[in-house]
Amino acid sequence: MSAIVATYEIRGDDRRARAEALAVEQSHELPTDLAPEPALRSLAHVVSFEAGSEFDTAVVEYPEELAGGELAQLLVHLIGNVSLQDGIRLVELEVPESLAAAVGGGPPLGAAGIRRVLGVDDRPLLATALKPVGLEPADLAAMASKLAWGLDVIKDDQGLANQPWAPFRERVLRVTEAVRETNAASGRRARYFPAVAGPFEQFEERLRFAADAGADGVLLMPGVTGFDSVRFAATVLPEDAIIMAHPSFLGGFTASSTHGISPEVLFGPIMRLARADTVIFPSAGGRFSLTVEQCRGIAEQSRRPFAGLEASLPAPGGGMSVDRIGELVELYGRDVLLLIGSDLHRGGDLRASAEAFLEAAQTVR
Amino acid sequence: MSAIVATYEIRGDDRRARAEALAVEQSHELPTDLAPEPALRSLAHVVSFEAGSEFDTAVVEYPEELAGGELAQLLVHLIGNVSLQDGIRLVELEVPESLAAAVGGGPPLGAAGIRRVLGVDDRPLLATALKPVGLEPADLAAMASKLAWGLDVIKDDQGLANQPWAPFRERVLRVTEAVRETNAASGRRARYFPAVAGPFEQFEERLRFAADAGADGVLLMPGVTGFDSVRFAATVLPEDAIIMAHPSFLGGFTASSTHGISPEVLFGPIMRLARADTVIFPSAGGRFSLTVEQCRGIAEQSRRPFAGLEASLPAPGGGMSVDRIGELVELYGRDVLLLIGSDLHRGGDLRASAEAFLEAAQTVR
Repeated sequence: MSAIVATYEIRGDDRRARAEALAVEQSHELPTDLAPEPALRSLAHVVSFEAGSEFDTAVVEYPEELAGGELAQLLVHLIGNVSLQDGIRLVELEVPESLAAAVGGGPPLGAAGIRRVLGVDDRPLLATALKPVGLEPADLAAMASKLAWGLDVIKDDQGLANQPWAPFRERVLRVTEAVRETNAASGRRARYFPAVAGPFEQFEERLRFAADAGADGVLLMPGVTGFDSVRFAATVLPEDAIIMAHPSFLGGFTASSTHGISPEVLFGPIMRLARADTVIFPSAGGRFSLTVEQCRGIAEQSRRPFAGLEASLPAPGGGMSVDRIGELVELYGRDVLLLIGSDLHRGGDLRASAEAFLEAAQTVR
Repeated sequence: MSAIVATYEIRGDDRRARAEALAVEQSHELPTDLAPEPALRSLAHVVSFEAGSEFDTAVVEYPEELAGGELAQLLVHLIGNVSLQDGIRLVELEVPESLAAAVGGGPPLGAAGIRRVLGVDDRPLLATALKPVGLEPADLAAMASKLAWGLDVIKDDQGLANQPWAPFRERVLRVTEAVRETNAASGRRARYFPAVAGPFEQFEERLRFAADAGADGVLLMPGVTGFDSVRFAATVLPEDAIIMAHPSFLGGFTASSTHGISPEVLFGPIMRLARADTVIFPSAGGRFSLTVEQCRGIAEQSRRPFAGLEASLPAPGGGMSVDRIGELVELYGRDVLLLIGSDLHRGGDLRASAEAFLEAAQTVR
């Protein structure tokens, strides 16, 4: 395949015309009757169109060269301008293997690599977040040292940045040390992922600081720092570092069903192209609004053959509780990273809660 | 003022409870009954709530320290997670002057500075884009040399990146040279703004290359490279360079009226915080979907007193034609940058079209 193939749902009036206009808007951005002949090589085309009731479906082929081997530019062409139009929604994506390779070759570890470096063969993997924002590094470290008795991944809440209460560097040093100490006592391989966003000119420096401190993974927010920042992080971090993507500031694309990008494509192939090893998304049944069907679709899109890339590991979160593990494994399968939040804090004893979570994950069928 | 004050429209059921949950979600992200006492310093609060019919309105105050002096983190707290929920929409924003200063102090030139460096006192300013994608640098340069007879700003189409047909560096060199030659002949001060997105690790390098080539301005896409990349660009570029922001990949926030960010706030205060001197948005009456009222609101939000920052210059575009100048000036006022696209190409003679556009702008009342 040498074309980028994108499928869109089209709503509203004159759907066929909207699809044709989309193909021009997202490639030439000049009516084709005004475009000089040599420029035709860059033009996208509607290659199939299927009428429906609620929406019609258009498949558009873009020349691979339009992306210029750059992830940011691929996104510009897939949905950049038409993201501003209600009634157009990106719902499927295929890209040539050559393009996926040019933008970095996908998740460095992927789902299988995450299991390998964490040393967990079969059970669902377990993660939680350090919060609330406002605690000091010593408090967060104390929390992490307890959580590391049961969790595989302890990540910063996305609300933790470089606030005066818990500056980035001090937090990273204290929490990595705390997790290391618990691991030495427990024989486990829990990991801490600092949230790295912050000023553009400090992004690489924070990544390197986290890796040097022994963080072995990071939490990134492509909605805030750009999808290409995730790809870049994969080029900076050590080989066995895990890249976890967080959906903060991405919801504009998914909160309505009539525009934007389907959550399946956004949290599946687009995140795999951006080189995320594991991808957080709001699970059905929590305080956010994805359906069970969408969540199952995200899991499928994270695993299906796509441009020769590794599978990413789905990390459903939001309103999750220990007693839902069975239900969640039924929905996502065992190859999942379950992100649990406030429920862990309810028992009062964080270490006991973390161990109970682990026990539940080890025994779930 | 020492708080960040954000106003949200709340739709759906249990609106008051949604507002309270939002304040916790976007600050602590842990139910307050589980949060240790010292963390209360980071908690946001609903400070007013007004019931309505279509929606209720909640004003939420966040402690300034939550942003940690970082633009990316401010966005995480304003709308990061709740962007994933339909029924919550950010519609007004105030931030303390100290925070606005900490994130760079707003547009380096702003609307007044743009007029100063372009040497245009009173009339509407004029811009267009080099397109279609697929042309070679020599073709684009030839196009620019004609357009520079009438336009103030000739920007790359956002679809131009580093494609094989027109690699970034060659394009920037050829087009800046062409515009410089026309300026020498015309006595005008037309400027060329290359589109800079591309790989994260090349972002600064491309900015510097553009400035060294004499580009005097850039086109940036915060939706693609992150809002903080725009702020960063302002720290790298020469003092009189103009930063133009493009709305590509931002439409998820604005395409529906029931979630995300109102276009007035997104293209107004948020872009000013990101240090954009001029902000492109889809004008009413074109092929995108903003209303006249929203467009007027964007213009107001780009000019109103906000955290001690310069005004940005609204740059409405999309489906614009020369014969609409009067109507557009009536809508936006004269302090506007009119972005015209394919209509300039309709006449066949680009220089004549550009001169006619200038003539129309000079005579509009």
